[in-house]
Amino acid sequence: MNADFLKDLINNYKNMIETRLAQHFLNPKSIAIVGASADPKKTGSRIQRFLVAHGYKGKIYPVNPNRDNILGLKCYSNLKKINEKVYHIFIALDGDKIIDSINDAISIGVKCATILSGGFSEFSLKGANLENKILDIAQKGNLRILGPNSIGIINISDSVILSANAMLELPNLKNGGLSVVSQSGSLIGALLAHGSSRGIGFSKLISVGNETDLSIGEIGKMLVNDINTDTIILFLETLRNSNEIAEMARLAYSSGKAVITYKLGKSDLGKELAKSHTGAIAGSDEAFNAFIKFNGITRVHMFETLIEVPNLFKNKVIAKGKRVGIATTTGGGGAMVVESLSDANIEVIDPGSSISKVMKKHNIPYDNNKLVDLTIAGAKPEIVNDVIQEFMNNDNCDLVIMVVGSSAKFRPDQAIDPLLKWANNSKPLAVYVAPDAPEALELLNKNGIASFRTPESCAEGIKAYLNYNAPSIIDDNIDDLKFQNIKNILKRVKVKNLTEFEALKVFDVMDINTVKSHVVSNLTKAIALRKEIEFPLVMKILSSEIQHKTDTGGVELNIISEEDLKIRYGKLFKVFEKLKIEDDKKQFIIQKMETGIAEIILGYRVDELVGPIVVVGSGGILSEVYDDKSVRIAPVDFKEAKDMISEVKSFMIFNGYRGLPKVNIDVLARAIVNISQLAFVNEIREAEINPVIIKKEGIVAVDGLINLS
Amino acid sequence: MNADFLKDLINNYKNMIETRLAQHFLNPKSIAIVGASADPKKTGSRIQRFLVAHGYKGKIYPVNPNRDNILGLKCYSNLKKINEKVYHIFIALDGDKIIDSINDAISIGVKCATILSGGFSEFSLKGANLENKILDIAQKGNLRILGPNSIGIINISDSVILSANAMLELPNLKNGGLSVVSQSGSLIGALLAHGSSRGIGFSKLISVGNETDLSIGEIGKMLVNDINTDTIILFLETLRNSNEIAEMARLAYSSGKAVITYKLGKSDLGKELAKSHTGAIAGSDEAFNAFIKFNGITRVHMFETLIEVPNLFKNKVIAKGKRVGIATTTGGGGAMVVESLSDANIEVIDPGSSISKVMKKHNIPYDNNKLVDLTIAGAKPEIVNDVIQEFMNNDNCDLVIMVVGSSAKFRPDQAIDPLLKWANNSKPLAVYVAPDAPEALELLNKNGIASFRTPESCAEGIKAYLNYNAPSIIDDNIDDLKFQNIKNILKRVKVKNLTEFEALKVFDVMDINTVKSHVVSNLTKAIALRKEIEFPLVMKILSSEIQHKTDTGGVELNIISEEDLKIRYGKLFKVFEKLKIEDDKKQFIIQKMETGIAEIILGYRVDELVGPIVVVGSGGILSEVYDDKSVRIAPVDFKEAKDMISEVKSFMIFNGYRGLPKVNIDVLARAIVNISQLAFVNEIREAEINPVIIKKEGIVAVDGLINLS
Repeated sequence: MNADFLKDLINNYKNMIETRLAQHFLNPKSIAIVGASADPKKTGSRIQRFLVAHGYKGKIYPVNPNRDNILGLKCYSNLKKINEKVYHIFIALDGDKIIDSINDAISIGVKCATILSGGFSEFSLKGANLENKILDIAQKGNLRILGPNSIGIINISDSVILSANAMLELPNLKNGGLSVVSQSGSLIGALLAHGSSRGIGFSKLISVGNETDLSIGEIGKMLVNDINTDTIILFLETLRNSNEIAEMARLAYSSGKAVITYKLGKSDLGKELAKSHTGAIAGSDEAFNAFIKFNGITRVHMFETLIEVPNLFKNKVIAKGKRVGIATTTGGGGAMVVESLSDANIEVIDPGSSISKVMKKHNIPYDNNKLVDLTIAGAKPEIVNDVIQEFMNNDNCDLVIMVVGSSAKFRPDQAIDPLLKWANNSKPLAVYVAPDAPEALELLNKNGIASFRTPESCAEGIKAYLNYNAPSIIDDNIDDLKFQNIKNILKRVKVKNLTEFEALKVFDVMDINTVKSHVVSNLTKAIALRKEIEFPLVMKILSSEIQHKTDTGGVELNIISEEDLKIRYGKLFKVFEKLKIEDDKKQFIIQKMETGIAEIILGYRVDELVGPIVVVGSGGILSEVYDDKSVRIAPVDFKEAKDMISEVKSFMIFNGYRGLPKVNIDVLARAIVNISQLAFVNEIREAEINPVIIKKEGIVAVDGLINLS
Repeated sequence: MNADFLKDLINNYKNMIETRLAQHFLNPKSIAIVGASADPKKTGSRIQRFLVAHGYKGKIYPVNPNRDNILGLKCYSNLKKINEKVYHIFIALDGDKIIDSINDAISIGVKCATILSGGFSEFSLKGANLENKILDIAQKGNLRILGPNSIGIINISDSVILSANAMLELPNLKNGGLSVVSQSGSLIGALLAHGSSRGIGFSKLISVGNETDLSIGEIGKMLVNDINTDTIILFLETLRNSNEIAEMARLAYSSGKAVITYKLGKSDLGKELAKSHTGAIAGSDEAFNAFIKFNGITRVHMFETLIEVPNLFKNKVIAKGKRVGIATTTGGGGAMVVESLSDANIEVIDPGSSISKVMKKHNIPYDNNKLVDLTIAGAKPEIVNDVIQEFMNNDNCDLVIMVVGSSAKFRPDQAIDPLLKWANNSKPLAVYVAPDAPEALELLNKNGIASFRTPESCAEGIKAYLNYNAPSIIDDNIDDLKFQNIKNILKRVKVKNLTEFEALKVFDVMDINTVKSHVVSNLTKAIALRKEIEFPLVMKILSSEIQHKTDTGGVELNIISEEDLKIRYGKLFKVFEKLKIEDDKKQFIIQKMETGIAEIILGYRVDELVGPIVVVGSGGILSEVYDDKSVRIAPVDFKEAKDMISEVKSFMIFNGYRGLPKVNIDVLARAIVNISQLAFVNEIREAEINPVIIKKEGIVAVDGLINLS
């Protein structure tokens, strides 16, 4: 038995366990409902009613000590009385009663439980304690939990509707390829209803609640392996277990399934609400965006785009560029889509002579507008067909937009018919239906064409598709010597914060050009440096206890003479006295005063939700005002670093702007790569060079800080 | 007969004419259809069919030389054969045939014509010539024209459906208070369809086409006077006759009618399309925003918000602040609305103890979240009622948001009932219905409650309402002496561009603190200035022919000594030589080198679409990168100027930011007021001070330009 064989065996076993768990959760052969009720006013009654109404084929065991029979089924006083194999229990009880059910479930060998009730960690400390207790018992008993605070599982493809969601009163749940994993239970119902009214079907919709045990990522992985799921939709209020989500997203990518998310917390206000609503930290939105980009997850900011956009991704083609062709049977409708595409760096292509020929052939006046307006041609299918064909043949076009006017309402067959043949084309077609025309939308959805109900969601969907990138390759190419040197510096540090001198030394080891620093502890030594460095100089207080030197008056710039040096030294000495620093700790750092074209900030930190990130942004006094920066998961490679530079608006001045010299940005890109490799140094929690001075031919780091974990 | 009496008489006569015109256009007693057709494939056939189908009560005269009878009505070979009074002709003919009809119409005394065909100024130069010819004939014959390129008039409240819009196949057009004036014909149909599916009714929908004669503003004024119109909706691709629109908007405000617009052209791409689509210049979006703010028009950027938002405005209350209270029966749904409100400077209020009491009374657990989540209470009407009542009573709340979950779908009566009583409340209620629930929306709309189909449009509607201001009062308080002085300076200018010296003199007269400038024509004189100004100095070339001194190397900053002055003078002399300026025109301007906290730009110009505007913004090299500025219609008063300052992001540093001194911004505000008063000087087309140096206690203008009309 060789090692590979053993590894395969272990993997196979692991897969088998996972498959079995997924089956018990999503498609169990039998279900016990603890807290079942016959009272239609009680939520507990819905579970059994919905299971039956939507055709569940397994066995159902209602559990309630006060009843013999519920809605025609034998009712058990407790789980232990069932005496048949129970694969999944659904708990519709509150508080401590849940603990009893969990214990009972474990004793009869149940492996899966869904807990409906809220009032746990999302609500109060007392609730959090109860939640921990439940988790502890379950883990010891090998019972996996969905929730608490989960509204349940809606598995349409297997007819297992195990949920209290009121939307399940809908009679015919439409089966389809979208699966939803959501931290909000009620929004699952809203998605279902919006889908239902326009022919969009779902496979599974799962409310994860507080994720005390099963996380979004683990459930997502079940969906990656689910043959009925084409697209995984995540509704997130926060990010928990980001590693699991990352792994799931990468597996989904390998399986050709798109992962699309709507996440709350773009704004501080949203973050505040998300925090109090879910009991979790919302984290920085930029870090989240870096995380999803890294792992190939697409984010949308409009709720209904979540269910409208998946068909753009279904043929698994990543767009080569950001170029669209657009035809319309309503001029204004087409113009609204273009309007909503603004600020997205998307090019509406000039269709040129090929479209002219088509228009001529059909005798339609055409003024060479980029928006190919077929209003006058009405909804004549052959014309629409020819125009779209032309765009599809055009190599300079990555996506085709068709905007349909009133014909969508009154002749949906005629208006929509010429669009359907593109469903499986490698270049996607996005359709905006301008009037309220549910039949047209249904026809499009049924045939797998991405269709949008508003010009804004259409534009958003297009942006999402054209901006999509495959997951980044994880770079773990380490220069061992370099890291040994850094570790040696860190070993000598006894506190959490490095001094500026130590921090600059680390950056120097990381191959980032750094200003030469001299540490002195008295004025005589400072003056003596006159021989080594030329004026103007910079002098700063040096202390691992003071992180914000500028704010405390601890930085003296542009020291021009020996006399000046004396005056400034006196000033800094007073700062030390004011801060009550002991005499033997009063140290000063002296450097050459560097100037250049601009000041920027280069940073690295371990984000508490997504892990190591690298940041580059505009520096100076306005950096906080404009918040002009780019963030990525660290480490990054050279190409990614150049991408980051192109995202910072103010860096456009490095390109030879208004008489300024053109900067060699490759040097900056290499510095970004270098600082991002701190991701390999576990000891470092945060590192920032502020500022990096940008010069024509290079950069120089003149100040920085490093904090340890 | 005194003057007032005469004025009244004229006004009354004018009003009578206007009223009569509005009646002939919107509600004519008889209509001739020129180019009528019985062929259902031809657009011409729709007009008569729709008129009849929707119950037109006046007389219809089909005109077509090839038919005796069309759809049961006698057909005339031409207009002159009718021999009865024709109030309005609808022309469904192309090209030159239109001219014949116009001539015939004039000859039988018709006063109103709608022209359907396109292919005019929006399409080609040839088309523009034909359009001009038609206008010329019509004006001479006292015939007013709607269009060309107008899809017609839909007057639902009077059952006059005079339009070729395909959407008129809809059987029952719902009557209501919204009236639409649109530069896009087809989108009228889309609005009608979206309204129809959720119980939103319209009074009039008018397609203005190319506005060759009747403009948006004139038609809008008809709607201001229309008792069936509550809200005027404008769909704009460009701005034509802004004065008429301004007048209309102000009349609408006085009549308590909101004017709400969607306008294309936010982006360069949109502008390009709007231009080629309508043949008009789209203009600057900032200037448009300044224009609508000045005149009390509200703009939305999502198409469906146009028909969703009006009920927020219907009680004619302007919000005191930007504070909202929010309750929800779907946590995620509520959070999405809050998310979409981000970046809008809107406060979600802390409902505090009053809501706690209500929740306690109804036994609902409540964790003091700002988002009052009633999910657990389901849709119990009494609880929803009590919570909303509490918010309505709260003086710190300007608008109440209610988000309705799945109950909206299955128990619309119960879920919606407690909301209806607030329809006529002075503090508005905005309702977002999370699931697809047309019945709930219909119930809300029928009762006059603002209801939204997406969280994003809900947030947009709320922003629109909370940001609304009454039209600005037009300030025409002129300081005659000041303007006489400016006119005297301008009189001496022989070219279109003032020199920097002259421009600074104008700014000085306008009471803007300006650096003292000295003009010299040789080095000796420059050196002699040494006695009058201290180093460091600035020296610039002075010429009305060179507008961009910096770009040509014509500015020397920070001249620190006499020796330095000589070197710099030599440099500037070479610039003059390179530019081939004649010897006697080689002049130099010398000023003290001013430094301060920041450099800003202050400007005034006459925008070709909206007229005089004033601009204040961030200066320096990054001003173009961040485009951080505020624009208003000029002149502005002191309060408006302070508002402008608060809109420029980077100006937050004037508030004592990170150790910088706090700036006296009142001085800057007065400078904005002063430059904005150039609006009274007709000769000036453009004036810019760049930069204005901001100091702790004041400002100083150091460079500027003025161009004349």
